[in-house]
Amino acid sequence: MTVFEHRGKLLIVDCGVLFPEDQQPGVDLILPDFRYIEDRMDDVEAVILTHGHEDHIGALPFLLRLRADIPVIGAKFTLALVAAKCREHRLRPNLVEVVEGNTTTHGPFDCEYFAVNHSIPDALAIAIRTDAGVVLHTGDIKLDQLPLDGRLTDLAGFSRLGDEGVDLFLVDSTNAEVPGFVTPEREIGGVLDNVIGKAKQRVIVASFASHVHRIQQVVDVAARYNRRIVFVGRSMVRNMQIAQDLGYLTVPDGLVVDIDTAATLPDDRLVLISTGSQGEPLAALSRMARGEHRQINIRANDLVVLASSLIPGNENSVFAVVNGLAKRGATVVTQQSAKVHVSGHASAGELLYLYNAVRPTNAMPVHGEWRHLRANAALAKATGVPEERIVLAEDGVVVDMVDGLAEIVGRVPVGHVYVDGLSVGDVGEPTLSDRLVLGEGGFIAITIVINESTGRAVSTPEVSGRGFSDDPTALKAAADLVESDLARLASEGVIDAHRIAQSVRRVVGRWVADKYRRRPMIIPTVIAVP
Amino acid sequence: MTVFEHRGKLLIVDCGVLFPEDQQPGVDLILPDFRYIEDRMDDVEAVILTHGHEDHIGALPFLLRLRADIPVIGAKFTLALVAAKCREHRLRPNLVEVVEGNTTTHGPFDCEYFAVNHSIPDALAIAIRTDAGVVLHTGDIKLDQLPLDGRLTDLAGFSRLGDEGVDLFLVDSTNAEVPGFVTPEREIGGVLDNVIGKAKQRVIVASFASHVHRIQQVVDVAARYNRRIVFVGRSMVRNMQIAQDLGYLTVPDGLVVDIDTAATLPDDRLVLISTGSQGEPLAALSRMARGEHRQINIRANDLVVLASSLIPGNENSVFAVVNGLAKRGATVVTQQSAKVHVSGHASAGELLYLYNAVRPTNAMPVHGEWRHLRANAALAKATGVPEERIVLAEDGVVVDMVDGLAEIVGRVPVGHVYVDGLSVGDVGEPTLSDRLVLGEGGFIAITIVINESTGRAVSTPEVSGRGFSDDPTALKAAADLVESDLARLASEGVIDAHRIAQSVRRVVGRWVADKYRRRPMIIPTVIAVP
Repeated sequence: MTVFEHRGKLLIVDCGVLFPEDQQPGVDLILPDFRYIEDRMDDVEAVILTHGHEDHIGALPFLLRLRADIPVIGAKFTLALVAAKCREHRLRPNLVEVVEGNTTTHGPFDCEYFAVNHSIPDALAIAIRTDAGVVLHTGDIKLDQLPLDGRLTDLAGFSRLGDEGVDLFLVDSTNAEVPGFVTPEREIGGVLDNVIGKAKQRVIVASFASHVHRIQQVVDVAARYNRRIVFVGRSMVRNMQIAQDLGYLTVPDGLVVDIDTAATLPDDRLVLISTGSQGEPLAALSRMARGEHRQINIRANDLVVLASSLIPGNENSVFAVVNGLAKRGATVVTQQSAKVHVSGHASAGELLYLYNAVRPTNAMPVHGEWRHLRANAALAKATGVPEERIVLAEDGVVVDMVDGLAEIVGRVPVGHVYVDGLSVGDVGEPTLSDRLVLGEGGFIAITIVINESTGRAVSTPEVSGRGFSDDPTALKAAADLVESDLARLASEGVIDAHRIAQSVRRVVGRWVADKYRRRPMIIPTVIAVP
Repeated sequence: MTVFEHRGKLLIVDCGVLFPEDQQPGVDLILPDFRYIEDRMDDVEAVILTHGHEDHIGALPFLLRLRADIPVIGAKFTLALVAAKCREHRLRPNLVEVVEGNTTTHGPFDCEYFAVNHSIPDALAIAIRTDAGVVLHTGDIKLDQLPLDGRLTDLAGFSRLGDEGVDLFLVDSTNAEVPGFVTPEREIGGVLDNVIGKAKQRVIVASFASHVHRIQQVVDVAARYNRRIVFVGRSMVRNMQIAQDLGYLTVPDGLVVDIDTAATLPDDRLVLISTGSQGEPLAALSRMARGEHRQINIRANDLVVLASSLIPGNENSVFAVVNGLAKRGATVVTQQSAKVHVSGHASAGELLYLYNAVRPTNAMPVHGEWRHLRANAALAKATGVPEERIVLAEDGVVVDMVDGLAEIVGRVPVGHVYVDGLSVGDVGEPTLSDRLVLGEGGFIAITIVINESTGRAVSTPEVSGRGFSDDPTALKAAADLVESDLARLASEGVIDAHRIAQSVRRVVGRWVADKYRRRPMIIPTVIAVP
């Protein structure tokens, strides 16, 4: 999410989510931190969405909770996905559809839209003109020169804007470290034709549920070899219906069958198109791999094609799925063994084309980790952008553009806002850090009831653990230590519950470190009764 | 770890550890399950070690705890690493050094050793002859035809053994899915020469501390460009000392300096060779990336080379290190951007050479996940091993060889044995499953003190949580619900502590599911006092 501010008004570009990593256990989604804008929602002129991927639209419902009627600008397919998402959140957004070539005005911001090629239909780049200068934001972009839908990234338009003069250029950095050029999407069609055409058995293809062009190619191959298709998985079924309704996906009549009809067809007459290409544990493919899918049993000789990337961090889950499928006898084709995936983000070679078309005064690599931003900055520099005009900024950094010079001028407080279940923001670093400790070592709880006037225990202290040891007698020694510590404290006349708690925590902590060299959380509870 | 059994006697090949995955939180190491042999330790004739990697020798000290005087057979470098490991465990193993071409006899097992090329010096394959037939076990293997030390995998020896007749062939499967051939190790030398030779700044190379040949190449390049070297990280320092002492690593006099001397030298006169190539949080490179290394501060323009693989599952940690280094201004070269790593395991093309040399009656792919075993089986089949003579077996499976036919005849109980801190085996699935629940959602503890004869609470129930929410008032509503539930139970005359605990657990569980849609562990403690 990027906020542009001019003359007291705000324009927001994209509003996506992050997915949690290992250090964020139990978190479902990560939202942008709205703190800087939440008291200024009336100043927001519009939200512009570059495309419909979750990392660009996923947090929109949470923004709309702050103000429901913000104009939401985007292309047709993007808005269709937003509408479906908002229905789940019981929101009715104020959607404004645009198409490449359109211009819109939002307060002091004049916007122009450019066609962009990416791994989802209808992606846009956005030029924002104000009296402070011209900004061009690519969104997610690549430069497939033979795109399946013929909708090229509008390099000519970027050149025209470059002639006019672009003051600040925000550029996708995802693949800036990768040399060369992304293979055209349509070459995957030939590979799929070869893989599926030769198959004698059932074929299951897993891909992203938003990758309409990839799925179009699977559909085309299925039709060519007289196989019916079944869409499997909630988001796949939903998105492919939207894509068909809006004309982004073309499926011959009668080709799609439901899963029950599929069960009556011979294996070599079927292609299942499924979610779960990232090993998501609840997605259809993972359930098949574990033998837990209600309707689909993986059988010997099934051919499974993962026509998808392997997003870093998902390796373990994906390999678990591949192993599960292999154990059930399926043959699994991945991008390692055949060219069944290409990236949606421009490689270094394409980024050079972009810089040379736009010839920006200032460049600001976006959309990537620090190393990607840095690699992208090197490309900007190689095309002639002076090093001091290249802005490398993290989340929360404020970049000011004055007299054609962009520079970092400050920082607003931003953090990760976590969604866990139904609530937003009540899980933060203290809770996550407790979860990490508990997840590594479990806990030992010590419960002591004392007489409030004498401080003496009125029952045997309870020492119990979870996530600590399978051995039921493991804590016996700790309980004995607690009892003698309590006797000592009582003999010294200590009646303060807090002091007693501190003392037994220390005793048990030392014991567990010496005996086990482990660090469970130690939780004393001292209750004083009359 | 593989156990061969004949005429009541046991021969063990390798005794390694696994490293824990996400689903095994808090676990330090995973040992083989010794249950099948632990009551028969006197029948063990010997342990033979194919090479010195942790996944082949790491569990040996735990096996020697069961019987300290088992003969441990291996090549010189392997045994040097074993000896160092055993010293840390205060064990004095009974080591028997062999060299390729040697034969040894252990009860009914006649063993012969063959030179094998891998990513550590001195790897061996082992032929085991008994009156039941001949078994050949490759250990970890590749077929570099121009190895740095000139020590080729003994394909000629394998062919001779094949002429004699190999009944069962156990073959490394790690790279069976990868087509073609592994690039020779020495080609990395040229790449390192180019990368380090052109560098104007300090260079830090991270690699495996056991990969002597990789480090030899770094040393050679450093010497060529008049740079001193510093070994950084405990295992790097230890192993390189061993390698130099035994003649596996050749370092010109005076080239190695210590870290304090290094601090006095110009940046372009230095190469640091460090551990931490897998992003291990406590290793030297990770500490540098976080700015926590006591002696080494990463500076702008430092060049860091990760001359190592990226082991699946370590991506997040490695990328975090790369990002940390990049943020501090270092340039990071990885195998993605330059050919600074080759695998230690034979690709499919090399495996075909092995099968064709050995021509085994029965083949048994080992060392890999199921999908790798399966890919290796396909290669065996392609070279003419009949499908019914290819054994695909998991841990614990018993393979019997009778009359030249190997087949699966049963299964012995095996599981993962976890080491957590000082203790072995007391952390098992119940504890891990508790850790996973606690790590995802934390816990809510409810502590209630009742009068043992009336069942009435004698103080306000305590409801507290850890890892649940940052909001200190989050559990107030739950405490109210517990109070009213206790009142209801008391009015119904319930005095049984267990029933009271069950009831409040249900009440709080329902509340947290409705209000938060989360699943913390809910832990009621009811203490009855007089």
